[in-house]
Formats: sequence, structure tokens, C-alpha cells
Amino acid sequence: MTVFAVVGHRARTDASWTLNDMPGGAGRMDVLCRAVNAAFFLSHDLRRDVACYLVLRGEPGPGKTLRFTGDRLRYLNPDERSTGSLIKKALALPCGPEFRESTPGVSVREGGLARLLAEHEFALLDENGADVRGAGQLPCAFLVSDHLNLDDDERVLTADLPCISVGPRSLHADHAITVLLNELDRRQQ
Amino acid sequence: MTVFAVVGHRARTDASWTLNDMPGGAGRMDVLCRAVNAAFFLSHDLRRDVACYLVLRGEPGPGKTLRFTGDRLRYLNPDERSTGSLIKKALALPCGPEFRESTPGVSVREGGLARLLAEHEFALLDENGADVRGAGQLPCAFLVSDHLNLDDDERVLTADLPCISVGPRSLHADHAITVLLNELDRRQQ
Repeated sequence: MTVFAVVGHRARTDASWTLNDMPGGAGRMDVLCRAVNAAFFLSHDLRRDVACYLVLRGEPGPGKTLRFTGDRLRYLNPDERSTGSLIKKALALPCGPEFRESTPGVSVREGGLARLLAEHEFALLDENGADVRGAGQLPCAFLVSDHLNLDDDERVLTADLPCISVGPRSLHADHAITVLLNELDRRQQ
Repeated sequence: MTVFAVVGHRARTDASWTLNDMPGGAGRMDVLCRAVNAAFFLSHDLRRDVACYLVLRGEPGPGKTLRFTGDRLRYLNPDERSTGSLIKKALALPCGPEFRESTPGVSVREGGLARLLAEHEFALLDENGADVRGAGQLPCAFLVSDHLNLDDDERVLTADLPCISVGPRSLHADHAITVLLNELDRRQQ
């Protein structure tokens, strides 16, 4: 099982936004939709051995965590809009501290990064990290930020994580996930 | 200059479709939007040394070719919907056999793959090709298909092109572009 987690710093935590304005009113929800696409899609197939968490930190709060699990996932299509629709359904579901499923393979709970970090041994995808191609055994869980850098509180929480870079250029979160999965695909050949 | 071309087998050649249904009524225009995103976006930057052609082969015809050129490109945002909006504007512009600019860095002409193949020395991105990591000097132009395989006519046109694979799994067009650019980034370091 390979795990990704993406921090959405401004991503809305309720469902009061429209699929027509995911970059604006939804708090860059488009970034998170693309990350989910990158984490799961193969040509005419899904990566069933992947889980992808979205850590939503925007208004109105409190923070929520969405979980997409490949082995149960249904109704996921590659376009941003349909992924946004699954996210919106999850955010419309009342939830507490334990995951509650909104559609097959998509669940939501209250809480954020601190709890998630206690549940998986993450590495941080960061352009200043060690090159993934030269890295020895890779961890199974990877944390990546959205279009914004990790804030001070997140930096404290992640200070001890190993850092891995996917290449010499600074990439969007979804592109970093794609490159990392390509490296994992090659190692699993 | 790195060049990508993506064949959109069912992508509409007029502007009579809605941004709310790019996978359906627009003929999988969402696939082409994601390919443009992958070709150009860096974190907080654009790849100015890239051009990306979209070869649209859907209804109502005749075929059209769109060209995105990084050094002139404006108004491109990473979300699918805004890229779709630029494509729609280009398709609404009457055009003939020569490129005509619809918005800065986006142009459109009539014609399709045969002419484009005569203008650039393409390699075909294909899962059965030679592994990009082990390849010697790479070409500057890469052709990739959308969610459908090349058809018989296209196979004849491309029969003599070198084939390059980006890894052991069969990937979506945009993911293949992302992995290929990562290899180029590393070689240009």
C-alpha cells in the first residue's frame, strides 16, 4: 500500500462551493482533485494499492481529512469536476472524529495533519530533499503540500520527517505524485 | 524547445460544448486540458520553452490543430476548466490553413496529424517503446494519444517514428508528459 497525503491550506471544509469555481470559492480544491487523479489513475485502470488523504484546512473549519482508498473506490473519473463532486459529497456528510464513508472508497473525519502523522510514517516530498532516484528503500507514505508552502505549525509537525525530491525543478503536487509513482513502478518491476 | 502533440480522437472541432461537460459533450476535451497543464506548469512558473499541439479529430470536422506556445502564453491557469475556456475560444475563431491566434500564445488552424508530422521530428510515447531512462539523445518532439489508441490511419502515418516508453505501466497522456519532462529536466541539469 502506497499512501499520499496532500495539505489543502485553503480548501473549504463544508460543501458550500460550486464545481464551477473550484480554484476560487472552493479554496484551490482543483489542486486536490488533480492530486487524487495522479494518485490513482493508470491507463484504463486504477491503482488499487494506493490511499490518498486530503487534509482540508480552509473555512469554515474545523479541519477535516478525506480518505480515498483505491481498493474500495468507485465513481472516480479522471476529470477534475467529477472528483470535485465526490469531495463535495464527502464534505456534505456530518462527521465526527472517526472516518465515515460518503461514497464507496471515500470517507471523511474531523481532524488534520497531527493525527495523520501519528498514523503513517511519512516522508515529505520537497524540492530540497534527497533525490528519489538515488534514495535507498523508500517509505510507503508521502506528504505533499498544495500550491502553498507548509506553514510554521506544519513545519514543526514535520520537522523530523525524511525529505525526498522528485527532480531538479519545483513541481505541482500532482506532478510530483506522478513522478514518484513512476519511480515506485520501476522498483516494483 | 520541447514540443508535445496530443491526438484528441473525439475532441469537438467547434465551440458548441459546455465547460461543465468536457468529458462527455466535448469529446474528452478534459484529457487534452490535462495534457496542456502537464506540458507547461511548474510550481509558480510556466515552461516557456515548450510548445503543445492538440490535434482535434472529433465532430463536426474538418480536423483542427491548436498550438500553445509557452513563450507567448497568457491566461493559462492550471485547472481544467480555464484551459477548456482557452480551447473553446480558439475553436470559436474562424480559421484557415495557417495558424491564427485566439488568445496570447494560443492559435488554431485547419488540418491534422499528417501536416504536423512533416513539421517536427516526433517520437511516439508508447508503452512498448524503449525506456526513456536508457535512451541516448532524445528527440525534441513527442507525440501522444488521448484515451484511445492511434487508429489505423494514424498508425500508418507514425509507423516510422521512434517509440519511447516512460515506464513499466501504461499511463494517461498527461502523466506520460510529466514523467518525460522530469527526465528532460534531469538531463538539462
